[in-house]
Amino acid sequence: MSSDNRQDINIEAMRHSASHVMAQAVLEMFPGAKLGIGPAIENGFYYDFDLPRTLTPEDLPKIAEGMVAIIRNNASFVREEISREEARRIMVSQPYKLELIDEIPEDEAISLYRSGSFVDLCCGPHVSFTGAIQVFKLTSIAGAYWRGDEKRPMLQRVYGAAFATQEELDEYLKQQEEAAKRDHRKLGKELEIFTFDDEIGPGLPLWLPNGGAMIEELEKLAKDIELKNGYVRVKTPHISKENLFLHSGHLPYYADSMYPPMELEGVRYYIKPMNCPMHHKIFASRPRSYRDLPLRLAEYGTCYRYEKSGELFGLMRVRSMQMNDAHIYVPEEQFAHEFVSVINLYLEYFKVFNISEYFMRLSTHTPDGLGKKYVDNPELWLKTEDMVRSAMRDNNIPFIEIADEAAFYGPKIDVQVRSAIGREFTLATNQVDFAQAERFELEFTNESGEKERPLIIHRAPLSTHERLIGFLLEHYAGAFPVWLAPVQAVIIPVTDSFIDYARSIERELRDAGVRVKLDARSDRMSAKIREAQLGKVPYMVVIGEKESSSGTVSVRLRSGEQKNNLDFAAFKTAVAKTIVDKAEGFGL
Amino acid sequence: MSSDNRQDINIEAMRHSASHVMAQAVLEMFPGAKLGIGPAIENGFYYDFDLPRTLTPEDLPKIAEGMVAIIRNNASFVREEISREEARRIMVSQPYKLELIDEIPEDEAISLYRSGSFVDLCCGPHVSFTGAIQVFKLTSIAGAYWRGDEKRPMLQRVYGAAFATQEELDEYLKQQEEAAKRDHRKLGKELEIFTFDDEIGPGLPLWLPNGGAMIEELEKLAKDIELKNGYVRVKTPHISKENLFLHSGHLPYYADSMYPPMELEGVRYYIKPMNCPMHHKIFASRPRSYRDLPLRLAEYGTCYRYEKSGELFGLMRVRSMQMNDAHIYVPEEQFAHEFVSVINLYLEYFKVFNISEYFMRLSTHTPDGLGKKYVDNPELWLKTEDMVRSAMRDNNIPFIEIADEAAFYGPKIDVQVRSAIGREFTLATNQVDFAQAERFELEFTNESGEKERPLIIHRAPLSTHERLIGFLLEHYAGAFPVWLAPVQAVIIPVTDSFIDYARSIERELRDAGVRVKLDARSDRMSAKIREAQLGKVPYMVVIGEKESSSGTVSVRLRSGEQKNNLDFAAFKTAVAKTIVDKAEGFGL
Repeated sequence: MSSDNRQDINIEAMRHSASHVMAQAVLEMFPGAKLGIGPAIENGFYYDFDLPRTLTPEDLPKIAEGMVAIIRNNASFVREEISREEARRIMVSQPYKLELIDEIPEDEAISLYRSGSFVDLCCGPHVSFTGAIQVFKLTSIAGAYWRGDEKRPMLQRVYGAAFATQEELDEYLKQQEEAAKRDHRKLGKELEIFTFDDEIGPGLPLWLPNGGAMIEELEKLAKDIELKNGYVRVKTPHISKENLFLHSGHLPYYADSMYPPMELEGVRYYIKPMNCPMHHKIFASRPRSYRDLPLRLAEYGTCYRYEKSGELFGLMRVRSMQMNDAHIYVPEEQFAHEFVSVINLYLEYFKVFNISEYFMRLSTHTPDGLGKKYVDNPELWLKTEDMVRSAMRDNNIPFIEIADEAAFYGPKIDVQVRSAIGREFTLATNQVDFAQAERFELEFTNESGEKERPLIIHRAPLSTHERLIGFLLEHYAGAFPVWLAPVQAVIIPVTDSFIDYARSIERELRDAGVRVKLDARSDRMSAKIREAQLGKVPYMVVIGEKESSSGTVSVRLRSGEQKNNLDFAAFKTAVAKTIVDKAEGFGL
Repeated sequence: MSSDNRQDINIEAMRHSASHVMAQAVLEMFPGAKLGIGPAIENGFYYDFDLPRTLTPEDLPKIAEGMVAIIRNNASFVREEISREEARRIMVSQPYKLELIDEIPEDEAISLYRSGSFVDLCCGPHVSFTGAIQVFKLTSIAGAYWRGDEKRPMLQRVYGAAFATQEELDEYLKQQEEAAKRDHRKLGKELEIFTFDDEIGPGLPLWLPNGGAMIEELEKLAKDIELKNGYVRVKTPHISKENLFLHSGHLPYYADSMYPPMELEGVRYYIKPMNCPMHHKIFASRPRSYRDLPLRLAEYGTCYRYEKSGELFGLMRVRSMQMNDAHIYVPEEQFAHEFVSVINLYLEYFKVFNISEYFMRLSTHTPDGLGKKYVDNPELWLKTEDMVRSAMRDNNIPFIEIADEAAFYGPKIDVQVRSAIGREFTLATNQVDFAQAERFELEFTNESGEKERPLIIHRAPLSTHERLIGFLLEHYAGAFPVWLAPVQAVIIPVTDSFIDYARSIERELRDAGVRVKLDARSDRMSAKIREAQLGKVPYMVVIGEKESSSGTVSVRLRSGEQKNNLDFAAFKTAVAKTIVDKAEGFGL
């Protein structure tokens, strides 16, 4: 352990030292450069500069050259502790540094690091000599507000990667390249899945026909699976009077995450940030008996939450959320069974998407959050947390436990996954709620004829369409399994003379439930194949003289394989079966 | 014609006279009664009263008795023209009448009608004698604000029906009774299709699981049919920046029908009243070629519009609208073909719902509305109206033409239907739009390589879920065809000992795609059958000793028919086929 730690410290010191060396090289190129800050980060380092001109990618090799020279000089890093006055004098021409000096508490020492001609306000640690900087590469330039404040000047941030060996750097750069290719924002645009529009608003994606096809498939999947698992579907409005959210307790506590109200006929309406209170109203709309339970109300409800513009990120962080939400109303004695059924349902979904790397995280309360972050009912917290723990253990479901991350109304299980390019996020969530039934006076008549409050399970197994599709884009690098591919087959007639046969093929495939397109343009066949390949279409069905006269098709698969002169009826059956089975391959 | 007209006038006079007679009878019961107004209406009459106590249904026969006595007396109706002063003197104890007198313009004559001891401010005409009032029945009591103004006193309105013959009255009352039974508000509650909640808001239905099941079926139907017809599905947010609706022209003109704005980060957002501008944005999100057209963008988008609280009516007039909306972008030369395809699609839907009584209404512009109600482009109006007319005529689709009811942006076809209880409404609409493509600068590259604006067809073949389900409730009196029934089969074990077989039946039917419920309560079988019958469940599957031992089922149909000891596998196949075929009967 300790040697690993030392290595971590060393590599971090090396990265931090590289940022000093970069700053020195930049000062040599731009003697009047004003320096911001320059820390070590995961995989490398950066430094922020205020420069007389905007850097271009062509500047990076020049800066790197300067760095290599400094590294060759092999100057030592020397630490000094100095007085505030001395620090101000040394940094007199560096306004950002002066600002930082002013914020150091009076009783704290101020330290500098010198390396050759370069000096920086810095706590260290550093490597001993610049020569200890092993392998680095400057990777990119970005704008960054001074201190992250959009009202302060925009500086230029130069990023670098730095590693102990060339192999590690190469691997990292390759990973980055792969990640860039899989980035859901890039793929979403190329594959025409979604778009944003300035006139509509940030964080509010428009789903293009290809995205629409995926949404339809995902909803069909969830509805089929959940119908078999005893869920019923409801539909609730997207807006409600303020009263509902006062009643549920969302207002005023959650107001910062909600869109602001609309005032109509003297009443304030809100667009819903979640579906729960509406489902509770449906539960309460008639008397319930234990025979009606568990009642599993499911809805693809779209909720809207406010996230700051600066925090929005592609489909991963948005303001509109299409959620396969459900609330399960259950008597206490059925809780454990139902909770585990929900977890098992999740595993069923994960199998469909071939997700094998995930972990479950149980979030619990802390006693000192009671009455603040958490409903003030210590007994119920302990009891429900214990119910969840036992249910998971009894069913051999591994999980880690994290204190102080529960929901307001009870403990929860989050299922964490990592996308192919390393973004970790919550794909599914399963929460116990012992508080809302009380607030909404939800009750059922138990077997003894008495009124009893149900427990409520909040669950969303497939996150939102936004996050899930974002995740799937990266997970599959856009090459979706056939059942999920927005366009499953493209028909490509070699020349116009085969268009009739091509049309009949198109019609038959469509009637068999295949999402198919006929590419009847007069372009060259190779161009059409290239386009379909870029669109990651699973089957490219080529129709020429031979195919047309023999009732066959020649199929090029997205994988590059070629299958010539397949009997069309057999091909159609195979494709339809691949879709229905949600199979991984092409079925040929 | 003229004799018909005379009869209409006579019956109206008779109904109006009945209202006077009713007022006289009420004054005899309550000498201090204050009178509002009392007109003839379709099928009868009413009068508004301000009374010392609230009337109950038991009062109606007493009032009717008083009326019969007055009619027997056979007093004559006598008209008098009097001065304003005289009128005020006669009505001195009738404050509502005094208010009416004050509003009669100075130069207008004031007339009274006397009949026996009764006198009323009235323009007539009346029958000659009270004895001419032929057949009547007092039907109901309701509250009504004086002059329809909720800030004025609430009066009590007594309604009566009146006809020339007893047969006509009986038929009317029978119709009314039938209508009350079919009223979608009553059925919607009994069958647990939808509910409203005060905390959520007026006009915003919550769809209960039974309504949710119907919505799922309707969406599946539309998606399947439209997929085969070349539509693609998109998904757009429910809210947008104000800019979009300024761009589309909805603001400020349509603002009164929209929910008010939400202000976020200094920007006003609106909840969408229609999907069109979002679809236009999708069209514009990439360059389009003539090869991409017609582009048919479909969406089940939920829109929100403001209707005054007082105008809301069950599901027929609401504030949330789930719409199977689509916008078709089409070059002019393909317009006629596409427009007729849309109409034919409608007819395909109507066949599914067994709707045979409908008519098509072409709404056109008027020249003096140009630049006000209508886009100011007279040539395009004439041209597109002519295109629609020719397309309809060439395809032998009958329609009537109504001037001055077009949409702002072009002519439209509305398909009008009547529900079983006589409510006429627009089930489907098909509109041409030659204006929005210009506003949004929509264009495609035509075969000659030039930029061209598409025409846009706005279409919604199945109204909204709200209206359609309201209509279908009345159309089928809640006894939906099997495919659409929220619960398609109820399994009823005769005693608890057959519960295992019942469960296996339930599972098999569910796996075969049947929405099935097991009624495992310990109630008597007859009670369970009664409840399923009230719920209009198509198949009641009874499981007893004989069925359980022989692998059969005994089925009671909603129609009352009984089918004993059916082979279960054959039954399951027949039900599944009935559902898939959307057949009308039960398939047994």
